[in-house]
Amino acid sequence: MSFTHPHLLGMEGLTREEILYLLDTAAGFKEISERDIKKTPALRGKTVVSVFYENSTRTRTSFEIAAKRMSADFVSFSSSNSSAAKGETLLDTARNIAAMRPDCLIVRHGASGAPHFLARRVSCPIVNAGDGTHEHPTQALLDLLTIRDHLGRVSGLTVAIVGDVLHSRVARSNAHALRTLGNEVRLVGPPTLVPREAAAWGTVSHELAAGIRGADVVLMLRIQRERMGANFFPSVEEYSRYFCLNRKTLAEAKAGAVVLHPGPINRGVEIASDVADGPESLIMDQVTNGVAVRMAVLFLLVNRAKVEVEHEPAAVEAPRVRQAAR
Amino acid sequence: MSFTHPHLLGMEGLTREEILYLLDTAAGFKEISERDIKKTPALRGKTVVSVFYENSTRTRTSFEIAAKRMSADFVSFSSSNSSAAKGETLLDTARNIAAMRPDCLIVRHGASGAPHFLARRVSCPIVNAGDGTHEHPTQALLDLLTIRDHLGRVSGLTVAIVGDVLHSRVARSNAHALRTLGNEVRLVGPPTLVPREAAAWGTVSHELAAGIRGADVVLMLRIQRERMGANFFPSVEEYSRYFCLNRKTLAEAKAGAVVLHPGPINRGVEIASDVADGPESLIMDQVTNGVAVRMAVLFLLVNRAKVEVEHEPAAVEAPRVRQAAR
Amino acid sequence: MSFTHPHLLGMEGLTREEILYLLDTAAGFKEISERDIKKTPALRGKTVVSVFYENSTRTRTSFEIAAKRMSADFVSFSSSNSSAAKGETLLDTARNIAAMRPDCLIVRHGASGAPHFLARRVSCPIVNAGDGTHEHPTQALLDLLTIRDHLGRVSGLTVAIVGDVLHSRVARSNAHALRTLGNEVRLVGPPTLVPREAAAWGTVSHELAAGIRGADVVLMLRIQRERMGANFFPSVEEYSRYFCLNRKTLAEAKAGAVVLHPGPINRGVEIASDVADGPESLIMDQVTNGVAVRMAVLFLLVNRAKVEVEHEPAAVEAPRVRQAAR
Repeated sequence: MSFTHPHLLGMEGLTREEILYLLDTAAGFKEISERDIKKTPALRGKTVVSVFYENSTRTRTSFEIAAKRMSADFVSFSSSNSSAAKGETLLDTARNIAAMRPDCLIVRHGASGAPHFLARRVSCPIVNAGDGTHEHPTQALLDLLTIRDHLGRVSGLTVAIVGDVLHSRVARSNAHALRTLGNEVRLVGPPTLVPREAAAWGTVSHELAAGIRGADVVLMLRIQRERMGANFFPSVEEYSRYFCLNRKTLAEAKAGAVVLHPGPINRGVEIASDVADGPESLIMDQVTNGVAVRMAVLFLLVNRAKVEVEHEPAAVEAPRVRQAAR
Repeated sequence: MSFTHPHLLGMEGLTREEILYLLDTAAGFKEISERDIKKTPALRGKTVVSVFYENSTRTRTSFEIAAKRMSADFVSFSSSNSSAAKGETLLDTARNIAAMRPDCLIVRHGASGAPHFLARRVSCPIVNAGDGTHEHPTQALLDLLTIRDHLGRVSGLTVAIVGDVLHSRVARSNAHALRTLGNEVRLVGPPTLVPREAAAWGTVSHELAAGIRGADVVLMLRIQRERMGANFFPSVEEYSRYFCLNRKTLAEAKAGAVVLHPGPINRGVEIASDVADGPESLIMDQVTNGVAVRMAVLFLLVNRAKVEVEHEPAAVEAPRVRQAAR
Repeated sequence: MSFTHPHLLGMEGLTREEILYLLDTAAGFKEISERDIKKTPALRGKTVVSVFYENSTRTRTSFEIAAKRMSADFVSFSSSNSSAAKGETLLDTARNIAAMRPDCLIVRHGASGAPHFLARRVSCPIVNAGDGTHEHPTQALLDLLTIRDHLGRVSGLTVAIVGDVLHSRVARSNAHALRTLGNEVRLVGPPTLVPREAAAWGTVSHELAAGIRGADVVLMLRIQRERMGANFFPSVEEYSRYFCLNRKTLAEAKAGAVVLHPGPINRGVEIASDVADGPESLIMDQVTNGVAVRMAVLFLLVNRAKVEVEHEPAAVEAPRVRQAAR
């Protein structure tokens, strides 16, 4: 069992075995962040570059901590004060960074498919850290790991994904992975926020109580306030009256059900504080697992890339750092 | 003698012995920055995260250099392009970062008391890097260390704190620490800029010459231009005519008196160039000592936290980094 | 042969031997970025600080990767959210950073001469990473290294520098270095964009085909769109009609000629895609060489500075890191 893809672009298309291998690798890395000395030399001398075209300090920080705990050098390339402002194309920017010989690019972009576009053109492993409304695979992996940690398995479960499914790359990545692993997926939200294609991922429900009834896992999605009042739904109050998860509605789920949310949470909008801070909430575990998942993904991609490019399997055994010629 | 607090939130409440222990520890770290190889493995494998809700490249850079010279991983979480913009509460942001298992959070926030609020709720040592108009303890420590370096002691001195005392966390932290150490404190500034509570910290004076007369130390505060013209004082010219420290007014202080300023300085506003660049000025020494003070604070908090959390005193002896399980 | 300047402020004034020594040192560092473990301990325990008053993620990233591959600590001090906004002078900011004992400052500033101004006042090696319209020496060095890699030499060549010569620090740095090394330099561009002083650097031409005729190297300059429509030229279309390098105009150059561009490129403005992506284009090689050049410059300046300040030649042999006193 192994993970042999050169990139991690999405959960769609990964096999059950590949997903489980990623989860097992991540589970093995969890222990490092609980150590007194949170460091392994696994990626020493490797350069990991984040290229974020959308702001996200949380996700970037999680990748940065993951990279640094693996002893990689982490460089943050933010587009806000970069060449993008000078009219450079995404591809030219990525090629330029690739020419500096990074060992991995972590890409977030507002356009769905942007990391896939780059993956075909840049000679460097690429991790999709969120592309438009498409995929966010490390988020799905950390959700799966958190579910498995708490329920003991990630198959044969009923998982309700609730909220703005339409715009959510978290929903897409999770729906694909959960189905591949043999879970029942439900997509729950107002009709304007559940896309037609969702019917292909699982059962669609437009009513919260019915949607989470008997579910093992309730995966809440973040409501982006900037979409409120647009065509999607009338107001925050209107939305939360029908779709905010609180103790009363959560009672519809199976006894022992767990609640996840990718954060940042809008308290009182999609999730009530008594649920967010309650015993069913795994939100903080998700964040902790996020670091482990990203350590695993960087480890697998960077080390595979090494073998690929060099055709020198012996190199896997981390040669000594030599002194620079003087 | 030791420092056993889990956090460094302010100078108020620290004992004389604790303050002196912090200064002694910092004095021991000064030498590292003068070495050819400015590095100690003291915090290897530790993750230090700065969470700044107010911009301050200077203070953040000082903490960053301190952390890196101790071999810690330093991660900068700036609120400007973060979850704060998405409506996340301070507590949720801090809990999220804490879930990534940092070894220390360095917090700057516009609200007085914000770091104290977090300290009661987050399982991680917190350093207050400035909270509203309340405290800025590492600034006071670097001021005290600089005074001691040059005058040989930090007790029995007369210290005039001059300027916008009302809005200054530097003034508050210094006033508390200086009094605890047995110094005479004077608060000098126009009536609108010296709060009533200052009378509890020392002598209040509204006249510069009288305020610094016979002082061993003149600690100038920064005037924030954005407050000019508000209710506090009519104009920069008006302020500097009465409260700018120049060679003539400085002559009122004791022979051999020293001048400090937390920076950045407004030349010609609160301090004249002939004083800022003169032999009495310790402004650059303050900056150099800032790195040593922050190394000491990080060292003491992170290593104490380790013992606290693990109940395993042996861990203090820095175990070897083990290779990640593969 | 060696490089004994305390700073790298410009190419003007460097001797042929010094430039070649810099290129040879850089050539030696190229191999590190092609290794599996891209790391040398050459600058371990050194602090390199970038102080950029103009945004440039590309150049900063190149320096950052260079510093980290040498094991230096890299700290980024950006002026946008710094003390500059609070009215601090450039010199005070630089002195403050210098007081934190960095081993090198990398300075980019909109004012020509700013790094030279600091170099006379701050006790720390300074690398000019671009000052106004004046110099950008590491860009010239990476251009020269790229030319030498591909043509086997950097003397006796005909090099056409094409575009907005007036505002280009890349043109100035290259023109000085190319002449020092014994090349024929041509400055090509519309009359409004070639300064009078250019006649002292080489032949001036206002026509693209004539300017690059028989050239070994065509070094294209970036057109800054914000200058379009000002007094300099009427429009992008107008400019590109006469000065865009495409396959047809490139045919005027010598067979085997190579094309360089400092990036980011404006496709279809100063360079056509068929040339930018064609076999003559060395643009990606320039970026790769940029990291090696910056490694070499940091290595030479930081190690020389060490000797200078300490008067202790033995220190060059990198003493062991000692444990901090506890």
